[in-house]
Amino acid sequence: MGTFKDFDAPVFKDLTSAIRALAMDAVQKANSGHPGMPMGMAEIAEVLWIHHLRHNPGNPGWVDRDRFILSNGHGSMLIYALLHLTGYDLPMEEIKKFRQFHSKTPGHPEYGYTPGVETTTGPLGQGITNAVGMALAEKILAAEFNRPGYNIVDHHTYVFLGDGCLMEGISHEACSLAGTLGLGKLICFYDDNGISIDGHVEGWFTDDTPKRFESYGWHVVPNVNGHDPVAIEAAIEAAKKVNDKPTMICCKTVIGLGSPNMANTHSVHGAALGDAEIAAARPHIGWHHPPFEIPQEVYSAWDARAKGQALETEWNQKFAEYAEKYPAEAAEFNRRTAGELPANWRSHVDGVINQVNAKAETIASRKASQNAIEGLAPVLPELLGGSADLAGSNLTLWSGSKGISKQNGGNYVYYGVREFGMSAMMNGLSLHGGLIPYGATFLMFSEYARNALRMAALMKIRNIFVFTHDSIGLGEDGPTHQPVEQTSTLRLIPNMDVWRPCDTVESTVSWARAIERKNGPSTLIFSRQNLPFQKRDAATIKLIDKGGYILSEAGNGKPQAILIATGSEVGLAMNAQKALAEEGVHVRVVSMPCTNVFDRQEPSYKDSVLLKGVKRVAVEAGVTDFWRKYVGLDGAVVGMDTFGESAPADVLFKHFGFTVENVVKTVKGIL
Amino acid sequence: MGTFKDFDAPVFKDLTSAIRALAMDAVQKANSGHPGMPMGMAEIAEVLWIHHLRHNPGNPGWVDRDRFILSNGHGSMLIYALLHLTGYDLPMEEIKKFRQFHSKTPGHPEYGYTPGVETTTGPLGQGITNAVGMALAEKILAAEFNRPGYNIVDHHTYVFLGDGCLMEGISHEACSLAGTLGLGKLICFYDDNGISIDGHVEGWFTDDTPKRFESYGWHVVPNVNGHDPVAIEAAIEAAKKVNDKPTMICCKTVIGLGSPNMANTHSVHGAALGDAEIAAARPHIGWHHPPFEIPQEVYSAWDARAKGQALETEWNQKFAEYAEKYPAEAAEFNRRTAGELPANWRSHVDGVINQVNAKAETIASRKASQNAIEGLAPVLPELLGGSADLAGSNLTLWSGSKGISKQNGGNYVYYGVREFGMSAMMNGLSLHGGLIPYGATFLMFSEYARNALRMAALMKIRNIFVFTHDSIGLGEDGPTHQPVEQTSTLRLIPNMDVWRPCDTVESTVSWARAIERKNGPSTLIFSRQNLPFQKRDAATIKLIDKGGYILSEAGNGKPQAILIATGSEVGLAMNAQKALAEEGVHVRVVSMPCTNVFDRQEPSYKDSVLLKGVKRVAVEAGVTDFWRKYVGLDGAVVGMDTFGESAPADVLFKHFGFTVENVVKTVKGIL
Repeated sequence: MGTFKDFDAPVFKDLTSAIRALAMDAVQKANSGHPGMPMGMAEIAEVLWIHHLRHNPGNPGWVDRDRFILSNGHGSMLIYALLHLTGYDLPMEEIKKFRQFHSKTPGHPEYGYTPGVETTTGPLGQGITNAVGMALAEKILAAEFNRPGYNIVDHHTYVFLGDGCLMEGISHEACSLAGTLGLGKLICFYDDNGISIDGHVEGWFTDDTPKRFESYGWHVVPNVNGHDPVAIEAAIEAAKKVNDKPTMICCKTVIGLGSPNMANTHSVHGAALGDAEIAAARPHIGWHHPPFEIPQEVYSAWDARAKGQALETEWNQKFAEYAEKYPAEAAEFNRRTAGELPANWRSHVDGVINQVNAKAETIASRKASQNAIEGLAPVLPELLGGSADLAGSNLTLWSGSKGISKQNGGNYVYYGVREFGMSAMMNGLSLHGGLIPYGATFLMFSEYARNALRMAALMKIRNIFVFTHDSIGLGEDGPTHQPVEQTSTLRLIPNMDVWRPCDTVESTVSWARAIERKNGPSTLIFSRQNLPFQKRDAATIKLIDKGGYILSEAGNGKPQAILIATGSEVGLAMNAQKALAEEGVHVRVVSMPCTNVFDRQEPSYKDSVLLKGVKRVAVEAGVTDFWRKYVGLDGAVVGMDTFGESAPADVLFKHFGFTVENVVKTVKGIL
Repeated sequence: MGTFKDFDAPVFKDLTSAIRALAMDAVQKANSGHPGMPMGMAEIAEVLWIHHLRHNPGNPGWVDRDRFILSNGHGSMLIYALLHLTGYDLPMEEIKKFRQFHSKTPGHPEYGYTPGVETTTGPLGQGITNAVGMALAEKILAAEFNRPGYNIVDHHTYVFLGDGCLMEGISHEACSLAGTLGLGKLICFYDDNGISIDGHVEGWFTDDTPKRFESYGWHVVPNVNGHDPVAIEAAIEAAKKVNDKPTMICCKTVIGLGSPNMANTHSVHGAALGDAEIAAARPHIGWHHPPFEIPQEVYSAWDARAKGQALETEWNQKFAEYAEKYPAEAAEFNRRTAGELPANWRSHVDGVINQVNAKAETIASRKASQNAIEGLAPVLPELLGGSADLAGSNLTLWSGSKGISKQNGGNYVYYGVREFGMSAMMNGLSLHGGLIPYGATFLMFSEYARNALRMAALMKIRNIFVFTHDSIGLGEDGPTHQPVEQTSTLRLIPNMDVWRPCDTVESTVSWARAIERKNGPSTLIFSRQNLPFQKRDAATIKLIDKGGYILSEAGNGKPQAILIATGSEVGLAMNAQKALAEEGVHVRVVSMPCTNVFDRQEPSYKDSVLLKGVKRVAVEAGVTDFWRKYVGLDGAVVGMDTFGESAPADVLFKHFGFTVENVVKTVKGIL
C-alpha cells in the first residue's frame, strides 16, 4: 500500500486527468450523463483508490475487500473510470458504450452489471445507507469470526456522497444510527461543491454539516481541500486512526473542475459539456490524448491488479492458517459468505412445519411469524433481525436474539424509528454477504421505506421485509395506521414476492421460502389479530409453495364459483363456503398467500386452481382493483376502496363488509 | 394573555392533573391508546395553551389563530383533553368514546373529525413537517398581505414532538429547510423522555439534538425541565423573542409522569395503565374525582372561550380597518383564505385551453405542464410552486416565479433534494389556507414521498403533486429512475386523482381540474419526451373532464376492439388504430388520462365508452395488472412487468414492445 505518494509529480495530474477525460468523453459520446461530479472528485478518487483502497480487480468477490460506494451515483463515470483504469474486467469498449443498451456501463452504477460495483446507486441517500449496512455487517462478522491474531474480517467501507445525499432524510436516519453503533471503519467523503441541480445551494441548503455529524457522534474532518492530495491523504490517515466513530471528511471541491468555462456551475452537473468546451478543457488539464485513449504509463500507474492479488493472497494465507486452527468457524464462514444455507436446512424446515401443523394454533400471524423465527433461527446464525422500534409489536425478537451495540456484535439491530434507513441498511447488509437480514415495521410504514424495497428487487438480492398490522384489523389506531392499498401496491414491484399468510403453517412456509430465495427480496405480511388454523393434509401443505392452492374443494367437487382469499380473509372465505353449502351453493376456496409466486407457476397448474369458466370472488381487506386480474370483469371482489376508521377491529370488519353474510351475498350476486 | 401565571398555586397542579386523569381514564375505557405522552407533556401543554396560544375555541377557523400541531400524534388524548377543557365543541361524551367508531376522538388526531385539530398526525415526522409548511405559509401570506400597522397575518406555529419524530428522516429534511428559510414563528417542544417503544433510547438514539438543530441554524433552548412551568415559560418567552430562526425547546420529561409505578418505562407508552395503577395514580397526582368528572373551577381555569373571542374580535376590528384602507387586498385575502377561486376562473381556463388547442404543439407533456402553469398562474396568485431540486427538469418555474428566501416572501419554494419533506410541507401549506401548493420531482421519487401523498388523500385536502419523467421514456438514467409500477400504485391510493395526460390539451385540463378539486389531492404525471398533439373537437375537449373518453372512433363506427391508452401511449394507440384499419380491423381509441375520475362517472357513460362485449387492449408503459379492471381476463395489456434498462428512450420503447407492430399483433391476438 501507498508505495507511490509523490503527489507533486506530474503523473498525479495525469492520473486525475485520465478520469476527467474519460468522464467528459463518455458523457459527450452518449450525449447524456453527469460529468461534473467525476471531474470534481478526481483527486479524492486518486488518493483513495491508489493509496488506500484494499481491493483486487482480478477478483471483485474477495470477501475481505474494502467496499467502495458511490452514493452520488449519477457520477457513474467516476466509478467506471476507476474500475477500468485499475484493471477490472471493464474494457474501454464498455466505456465507449456508456449508457447504451445492455452495456456494462449503465447510466447509474448497477449491482450485477459491472464488476466492482457493490450496490446500485442513484436514488439519493440510499448509497450511504447501504454503506452503513455494509460497515455494520463487517462489525458483526468480525465480532463473530475473528480470533486473536486472525482478523479475517477487517475492511473499510468508503463512501462518496454529495449535497443531495445529505439533504435526503434517509442520510439522517442512517448516519445517526451509524454514530450510535460506532461504526469506526466507515469513512465518507462529502463532495462539498456548493452546487445542486437548481444552482448554488445557499438558498435551500445551509446546514453546518460538520456540526451536524458531530451531533451524531461522528469523527469529522472539516475543511479539506478536495483537490489537494496531501490534505486528502492526511484526512484519510486521521480517519483510519479513529476506530470507534465513523468519519466524515468534508471536502471543498469545484464541480466540473477542468472545464475552463463551466466549472463551478450547475450546467456541468448533468449534461455533456459539448465538443468546444471539451476541446478547451484538454489543454486546460494538460491532457493531449484523443478520446478513449490512455497512455500506457497512466494505465501502469493506475493498475491495481498485482497489488490487489498480493493483498488477497496474503489474506488467503491468513485464512488458511485460521482454517487449520478453527476449522468449524472457517467452514461456517465459507458457507455463509457464499450465501449457502446449512446442509440440513430442508429437513429442519420440514420438521418445523410439521410441528407447527401438529400444534394447530389459532394465533395472530405476527405471533406465528415469531414462532417461525424461533423454529428456524437456531440453525441459521446468519439470520440478522431487527425492527424500526416496534420489536414488541412486530414480534421480531426470539429467544436467541442478542442486540448489537457500539461495544458488541450480535444478531439483532434496534434500528430505532427509521423505516427507510432500516430497509436500505438491510440492502447493504445483504449485499455485504454473510448475513440474511430481516427487519420489520407496521405495514403502513412500508411506505416510508418503499424505494429501498424496490432497490432490493431491482438488485435481485435476498432480503426479508416483515410487515405486521396488515389491515383494518389493526383497529383503534385508525386510518393513518390501517393499510388498505399497501399489500396490492407491494405486489406490483417487479421481482418482489409478497406473502400474506392465513395461519401458522402458511406463515412458517413463507418464512422458509423467503430465506431460500436467493434472487430477490420477499415481503412477509402478518396480522395483528388471531387467525384460525386451517387443516391441511401433507400434500396440501406442499402446495403452499406454489403461492396459491385449493385449500378446500367444493363439497360436491364441482365448484359453481371459486373464492380466492389471503391472510385474515381465508378464515372468512372458509366460513362463507360452509354457509353457501347450506344454501346449496358449492364453492371452492383458494388460499393465495403469494400472488407473485402463483403467477410464476405453469399455466396448467394455474388453470387447475382457477378453473376456466368458473366465476370467482376475491376476498381481501384492501383495495379491489388488483384482484380483477384473477376475477375478471364478471367476477367480484369483497374489499374496500376507502380508508379505514378508528374503532375496534370487529366493528370495522363488520362495517366494511367482511362478513360471511356479505361474502355469501356477493357470490350469489354473480351466479 | 398570561393573566394567570401563578404556577405555584394548587390550581396549576389541578390543571395538569385534569389532563393526566382524562388521558388515563379515556385510554382505560377504550382499553387502547397512549397515556404516556399526555401525562409527560401536561405541564408544557398547560403553560403553552393557557398562557401563550392565541386561539378561539368558539371559532376554530379563525384565520389568524396560532397553529398547534401534535406531531407525536399517538398522544392524541393530550389534544382531545386540551380541546375539551378549553371549550371547543368536543363534549365529554366524545372523550368517553375515545377510539370508538365515528367518534370525534379517533386513535390519532384526524383533520376534519375534531374541531381544533389542524392536521392528521400519527405517521411520525410528518406533523413537524406539516408545521414547517404552515409556518412558511404564514411567512408568505404576511409578506404579501401585511401593511404598515396592519399585521393581519401574524401568528405562531407550535409543535409537540418526540424521539420518534426526531429519528425519522423527514424531520431532517423539514427542519434543515426551516432553518434555511428562517421561520422564526415556528416554536417546537421536544418531549425528551428518553423512551421509545423498544425501551430506553440510548441503544439506538444518541444524537446531541440541541447541536443537531444548531447545525440547521435554529435557536435552541436546551435542558428545560418539562415539568417546571417557570422554566417552560422562560423558554417560550425566549423563543418568541427570536424572529429570524425557528426555536427548538428541548424539554426533559418523564413519560407517564403521575403513574406511581410505571412512569419512565416504555410500558406506559402505548397501553392502558390498568385499573389498579390508575387507582394508585389518583392520590399520587392529588386528583380525587371519578373518571370523566372535572370540577367546575378546573373547567373555569382552562376555559379559553372568552379570551379567544376577545382576541378574534380585536383582530376582526383590525381587519375591518385594513379592509377600509386596502379594500382590494382585503377582498383578495378573504377569497384566498376561503379557498375560493377567482370569479373569472372558468372563463380564463377555457380561454387557455382554447389557445393551447389552437397551437396544436407536439412537445413533452412536462413542457405542456409548464405552459399550463404559465397560462393559469397569472390569475391565481395563491399558486405556490416548487420542486425538490429539479426545477429545470420538472419545468415548474414560470415567468412570474419568485423564489422564497429567508429575507423575502414569494411564490416558489426551492425545496432542495427533499421529496418527502416537500410533500408533507405542501400538506401543511394547503392546510394553513390561502395558498394552493404544487411541488415536483421525478415520478420515481414519488416513492420517497409516498406516505405524504396518502396523508393528503386521507385529509381530503387540495394539493397538486407534479411528477415528470414518467416511464422508460426517461431513457439513459436507467431503471433506478424509470417508473414502471408507480403510476399504477398511485392510482390505488383512495381519494387520489392521478392524471397522465397524452398531450398539451389534456395536460392543461388536468392542471385546471387539479386546481379546482377542493376535496382531495391530484397527482399530475408528465413525460420527459415529446408527445404528439391530438386533434379534438370542442365537445371532445369537454369530455377530458370525465377522465376517459373516446378520442377516436373506429373508422366504421363499429369497433371490433377498444384500445385504451394513457399519456405517451395514446399516440401509439392512434397509430396502431390506423395500421389496424389498413388491415380491415376497426378499433376505437379511448384516452384515459385519469382512471380515478373515470371510475366516478355514471355507469351509462362508462358503458358508452367501454362498450360491453367488446374486447379491450390497454396500452401503458408500466405494469399490466392494474389494467385488468378494464380489459378483464379476455382482453390484453401491452405493458411491462420488469424493470427498465439504461439506454436511449427509442431503443427501450422498441425493446419493451411499445411499437405499432406489437399493439397490432396483440389486438389481433385477442380477436
